[in-house]
Amino acid sequence: MNERSFYTRTVPRVPESHLEARREQILAAARRCFSRNGFHATSMQDVIDEAGLSVGAVYRYFRGKDELRTAVAEEAVGAILQELAGISTHTPPLPLPEAMAQVLAVVERRLGGPDPVARIAVQAWGEAMRDPDLGRFAGTVFGRLRDQFTTIARGARQRGDLPADSDPRAVGAVLMALVPGYVLQRLLTGGPDRETFLAGLAALLSRPADPPAGT
Amino acid sequence: MNERSFYTRTVPRVPESHLEARREQILAAARRCFSRNGFHATSMQDVIDEAGLSVGAVYRYFRGKDELRTAVAEEAVGAILQELAGISTHTPPLPLPEAMAQVLAVVERRLGGPDPVARIAVQAWGEAMRDPDLGRFAGTVFGRLRDQFTTIARGARQRGDLPADSDPRAVGAVLMALVPGYVLQRLLTGGPDRETFLAGLAALLSRPADPPAGT
Repeated sequence: MNERSFYTRTVPRVPESHLEARREQILAAARRCFSRNGFHATSMQDVIDEAGLSVGAVYRYFRGKDELRTAVAEEAVGAILQELAGISTHTPPLPLPEAMAQVLAVVERRLGGPDPVARIAVQAWGEAMRDPDLGRFAGTVFGRLRDQFTTIARGARQRGDLPADSDPRAVGAVLMALVPGYVLQRLLTGGPDRETFLAGLAALLSRPADPPAGT
Repeated sequence: MNERSFYTRTVPRVPESHLEARREQILAAARRCFSRNGFHATSMQDVIDEAGLSVGAVYRYFRGKDELRTAVAEEAVGAILQELAGISTHTPPLPLPEAMAQVLAVVERRLGGPDPVARIAVQAWGEAMRDPDLGRFAGTVFGRLRDQFTTIARGARQRGDLPADSDPRAVGAVLMALVPGYVLQRLLTGGPDRETFLAGLAALLSRPADPPAGT
């Protein structure tokens, strides 16, 4: 706490917008490094070089790699949660296929680009298998994301799209599962595209008009 | 090829069953090392120490880490594919919830135990983000697994559980997505258990008898 206020005191005359821009510049550099080499293999010096800033400039904002990691994750997860909350709390609740189409659009924007958050996430899941701190952090993030899908499931039940006695938490876990499963297929096999995946989901959720063919 | 036949020639009098047991002993040691530290941070010496064998004994079976990695993955994936094929080619096709219940039972057996294959898989996905060879390999494995889910979807369509005009490849991608999504939730958050997840899936696949509540 004292160290934090020390850092704050050293930059009193720099405009707020400049501080924010500089912080974002460092986070973008960190995302590129993490995406390329994973958390463990990235050093503070790598991020400093990538950002093209001085050692002092970077350490003024982040005291170490753990703080950078947390900031990158908080920023990415915070933005995703905000977008998901917009979908899950829509009034009246969205039809389930429409809600999931919007969810996949949120995911889609993280798959590519210069600092692809999805690639960092997949590496974080892997490193979480052998890093208990990262494991706990990733578990908390997964729990918060799953809560959004539970809310989507509750809305679907309210709409009558799900049986009245269905458990929104159980349905939420299934809807949540689709996201990493979609991300991994896209990043590892290049497909399917969002439209194909949504068509598959729509087929699963549909109630065929025809009676089942006899088997 | 020549090196291979050289190695083969050096062990002519050892019984086949002994060779197999020794090979499996090394693979089990490799799985424990990979699970603990990931592929990249594991050295051949780590595996040799873990197996409690001599350097020569291990190199007689595997010429390097890449060969070990491929063998571990081929063995794990081969076993899973064989079990999935038993489910996807069932005659007559299984009801979709029953097929997925059996799939999750296959997955469940890989989540824990002394050398948990699922933990290795999650680490491999992460490392595949920055290792193009591993990425291609993981992509091929994902493609082969997805083919099994496409077969399951084709069976479900044949049963009349899916619309007649639905695309089994699209549905297969969605069913496939559930597996890594389930594995990650279990490993990172400890839940949900298989029964809860299957109840959520059943609710999504169900056709409510009641008309939708007006919204």
